[in-house]
Amino acid sequence: MLGDTGTITREGDLVQLVGLSHKSFIIILKSGAVFHTHRGLLNHDDLIGKQWGSQILSHNGSPFFILQPSMTDILRNTKRSTQIMYPKEIGYILLYMGIGPGSRVIEAGTGSGSFTTALAHAIGDSGGIYSYDVKEVNQASARKTLEKLNLINRVELKVRDIQDGFDEKNVDAVFLDVSNPYDYLDQVRGALKPGGHFGCIVPTTNQVTQLLVSLRRSEFAFVEVCDISVRFYKTEPSRFRPTDRMIAHTGYLVFARPVLINNEERDLKLLQEIGLMSKLDNEIEAREDLE
Amino acid sequence: MLGDTGTITREGDLVQLVGLSHKSFIIILKSGAVFHTHRGLLNHDDLIGKQWGSQILSHNGSPFFILQPSMTDILRNTKRSTQIMYPKEIGYILLYMGIGPGSRVIEAGTGSGSFTTALAHAIGDSGGIYSYDVKEVNQASARKTLEKLNLINRVELKVRDIQDGFDEKNVDAVFLDVSNPYDYLDQVRGALKPGGHFGCIVPTTNQVTQLLVSLRRSEFAFVEVCDISVRFYKTEPSRFRPTDRMIAHTGYLVFARPVLINNEERDLKLLQEIGLMSKLDNEIEAREDLE
Amino acid sequence: MLGDTGTITREGDLVQLVGLSHKSFIIILKSGAVFHTHRGLLNHDDLIGKQWGSQILSHNGSPFFILQPSMTDILRNTKRSTQIMYPKEIGYILLYMGIGPGSRVIEAGTGSGSFTTALAHAIGDSGGIYSYDVKEVNQASARKTLEKLNLINRVELKVRDIQDGFDEKNVDAVFLDVSNPYDYLDQVRGALKPGGHFGCIVPTTNQVTQLLVSLRRSEFAFVEVCDISVRFYKTEPSRFRPTDRMIAHTGYLVFARPVLINNEERDLKLLQEIGLMSKLDNEIEAREDLE
Amino acid sequence: MLGDTGTITREGDLVQLVGLSHKSFIIILKSGAVFHTHRGLLNHDDLIGKQWGSQILSHNGSPFFILQPSMTDILRNTKRSTQIMYPKEIGYILLYMGIGPGSRVIEAGTGSGSFTTALAHAIGDSGGIYSYDVKEVNQASARKTLEKLNLINRVELKVRDIQDGFDEKNVDAVFLDVSNPYDYLDQVRGALKPGGHFGCIVPTTNQVTQLLVSLRRSEFAFVEVCDISVRFYKTEPSRFRPTDRMIAHTGYLVFARPVLINNEERDLKLLQEIGLMSKLDNEIEAREDLE
Repeated sequence: MLGDTGTITREGDLVQLVGLSHKSFIIILKSGAVFHTHRGLLNHDDLIGKQWGSQILSHNGSPFFILQPSMTDILRNTKRSTQIMYPKEIGYILLYMGIGPGSRVIEAGTGSGSFTTALAHAIGDSGGIYSYDVKEVNQASARKTLEKLNLINRVELKVRDIQDGFDEKNVDAVFLDVSNPYDYLDQVRGALKPGGHFGCIVPTTNQVTQLLVSLRRSEFAFVEVCDISVRFYKTEPSRFRPTDRMIAHTGYLVFARPVLINNEERDLKLLQEIGLMSKLDNEIEAREDLE
Repeated sequence: MLGDTGTITREGDLVQLVGLSHKSFIIILKSGAVFHTHRGLLNHDDLIGKQWGSQILSHNGSPFFILQPSMTDILRNTKRSTQIMYPKEIGYILLYMGIGPGSRVIEAGTGSGSFTTALAHAIGDSGGIYSYDVKEVNQASARKTLEKLNLINRVELKVRDIQDGFDEKNVDAVFLDVSNPYDYLDQVRGALKPGGHFGCIVPTTNQVTQLLVSLRRSEFAFVEVCDISVRFYKTEPSRFRPTDRMIAHTGYLVFARPVLINNEERDLKLLQEIGLMSKLDNEIEAREDLE
Repeated sequence: MLGDTGTITREGDLVQLVGLSHKSFIIILKSGAVFHTHRGLLNHDDLIGKQWGSQILSHNGSPFFILQPSMTDILRNTKRSTQIMYPKEIGYILLYMGIGPGSRVIEAGTGSGSFTTALAHAIGDSGGIYSYDVKEVNQASARKTLEKLNLINRVELKVRDIQDGFDEKNVDAVFLDVSNPYDYLDQVRGALKPGGHFGCIVPTTNQVTQLLVSLRRSEFAFVEVCDISVRFYKTEPSRFRPTDRMIAHTGYLVFARPVLINNEERDLKLLQEIGLMSKLDNEIEAREDLE
Repeated sequence: MLGDTGTITREGDLVQLVGLSHKSFIIILKSGAVFHTHRGLLNHDDLIGKQWGSQILSHNGSPFFILQPSMTDILRNTKRSTQIMYPKEIGYILLYMGIGPGSRVIEAGTGSGSFTTALAHAIGDSGGIYSYDVKEVNQASARKTLEKLNLINRVELKVRDIQDGFDEKNVDAVFLDVSNPYDYLDQVRGALKPGGHFGCIVPTTNQVTQLLVSLRRSEFAFVEVCDISVRFYKTEPSRFRPTDRMIAHTGYLVFARPVLINNEERDLKLLQEIGLMSKLDNEIEAREDLE
């Protein structure tokens, strides 16, 4: 399991093998098994009992390092069938939405299961992940990954059109990775605890603006929209510089929290500030300091 | 405690009060106590038993929303005494270094305790955080925050010049937020399990290049350097646009993993690829796809 | 005049004085005149006959360097009354729209005159700039700057609601810095030569999408939308790093060219590629290589 | 010639033909000539007398639009043999260094001639470009482009190791696109007028820091370092979003101006501010506002 290794590989460990040309594989060690690569065979028995971080050779002499995969390594190895979220988004979402040990979280759709996996890892043995998708076939890859990582017991995969609502009540957070999140805000309110964390990712500004209108109507406040960039650098110390190209856009992250408005005591200025009423342009405060 | 709320506030809950002008406060509810703000008094008894996400008024009518603080909210409220890391960095680091429930992690220096807090939250009830700082006074703010959040039992705060080494062995990850991380790589190797995750943040390229040289000498491989940007947007749906200004630089994140080189079986090409030997410029692969 | 200096300052020269605290002033040398700063008086006669790049002292000993102002220096000194374009945008626009010696260019509105000034400098003694604004008062600052820089003879400042159209025909380029450029595309077509360059800047995505629809209807093709960021660095060689903050957003630049469609010979695929017809999402080519 | 077109194409005009799959060609119209494309033949006689912005068909029915190429179109068509500068850099450099009609500018090396071409266009009929390269063969592509664009008479291509100095004196600007600009600052001072504009582009931070040290020693002040990013957007109005990938790095732009220090009257504070002396870290002002 993730984060539970000694210094020596053992049967049942999840290991990452890193070979030439940046090819890497994540497997579970099983006595007697053989792993086939295009650079030769590796007997699991030769991989068991080795020091983490050491190098071994395949039957035809091709070298591989043996590492404990991190969540990022796992995400990079997950087959990408749909909308992609990168570690840069996933790390931010988890932190921003307060997701950690014990959290109960709904997500839809399940997609490739990358985010599901990160959620399941983050919540630990308590809490729970409820992952909805409209088609069972979409969840096959997610199920496989979760089983391999021994995280499946933390996740309920549900086949459902979320138009019909969620089964859970008072969850801590709901994250939607669907093309029309603005259509499901009533369903979200029904499942999310008051003051809880709603988040979603959408690729276009048209979706963002439509969502912003709907969030206001449904009395979600504390709305924040951002996108995240990572610039990588070449690691040659005498020629330090960024890589030539980078990911320019994954999607816009939108966060909000359902609040309860008491119409008799509501304060217009505060409603403006938390995004529930429109402001004149010169009233829109810079939010730069909130990062 | 974080992530463990019902729908109604109770004594002992950690609550965030959000008032006018984006002023917010994080307090623990305690029957009979009174909270003083510049916009009036709030009796804790009036805050207990309220629905999360609802609004209350201070004794002179100033409105406040009652929310469950997320880790980001807490980080934004932490007093910043030293080098700043933002949620954009912290989320990425946790995910990248595989830190989650059960992880054992060393950090130095403790600084304001922002990162310590995020680490303590992420590891859950098992695992442990070992946070070193050269001066006890630096740890006062961290200790206070950890106690308030009921996370102090997950953290050992140690006063030590890390030149003298760490007490722990075989931890999963070591993170250094010090100005000269290149001076402590032997100490890191002594505490970190083979193949484990080493990370640090430094503000200047001079520090990065010096570190890259030292990492190679100390046989740390799988080196990655990046920086992270978040662009926030104004959330007025009819005038959607980025904010005018943004954070341009917090620091460079550097990650690496100690490996074990067997000189008889080492493969020069693989050592080049994982960053342990120099490459000619035309051999430096684009790393863009690794995001 | 810009770019026409010898090595020694002469009467009539435009000079930039750079004093303490990054305070700078752009003045024209005039025998007998006195320049008052908050750090003392400077007699123009003492500034005439000095070597460019040298330092002088005010009457009370405060130091100033004497420099030839570049267009960027001038833009930075222009009073900003309205929408701001920075050198990063202006340089790109000039190059992208092919504006250089001999170009005839329409702009609206005149605004603070920053862009007008850059245009007038770029076109040299031939060509011409036609700058429209709905209110004469808006052009006062622009006129003053142009006169000071001896560029006024290259520019016609016109007070006009551009709804009523432009006087010129077959100009090389039209640039609109107005809030509703989509309302004036017929007027633009009437003034711009076929195949000429249309450009504008708008701050919000709502304006961009509305403009994209209108451009297509009005048969403008080769549409490109971009925004430009500059990251500055602190120049201390031993602590090289980006500045802490940066400009996140000035506006979206939108460029397009009016084309002539012969309905009998039109090619649907080509119309899609140049942006005159809609494409399915999976047909939208990456444009990254076009930079 | 650039920027000198009527509404109808004429013999001798420079035209850009844009066909399917974003293929474009820049040619000069010559009566009787035939242009061969992989999508059929185009008789120049059929291209002459057409309206700019209209579409024609090749002999086998493949469509092409006829446009006036802008400088950006030309740069995109220039064969890239060496270090690449994009329009985003070139536009900024021209504006920042005050290069326009009448400027006298030295550049080295000539490289592919992209920047040479942009310089030659910007200076108009007066002024002059002096382009040095250590090898004549490097200048072949530049010469060809300049001849085609009828700009060759504005440029002197010189084969020279710039270690041996430049022939010109008191030029307005010197731009170096070489790997070791720090080795040529004496030569630059010898050719550049006092207070003039020095600029260069280098890909790595190691080169930047070495250059910063040398600039200070050689009494170049007003040093600025920046890099420029352009984010492009997909232009489908109902699905507006950035492209997926972007250029992350071309190079660092470094600008500076040679000044004359009178040791008796020098002011330490001002020397610090303009970058000629070191500052303590807490004295390094944010330069964000200078954009």
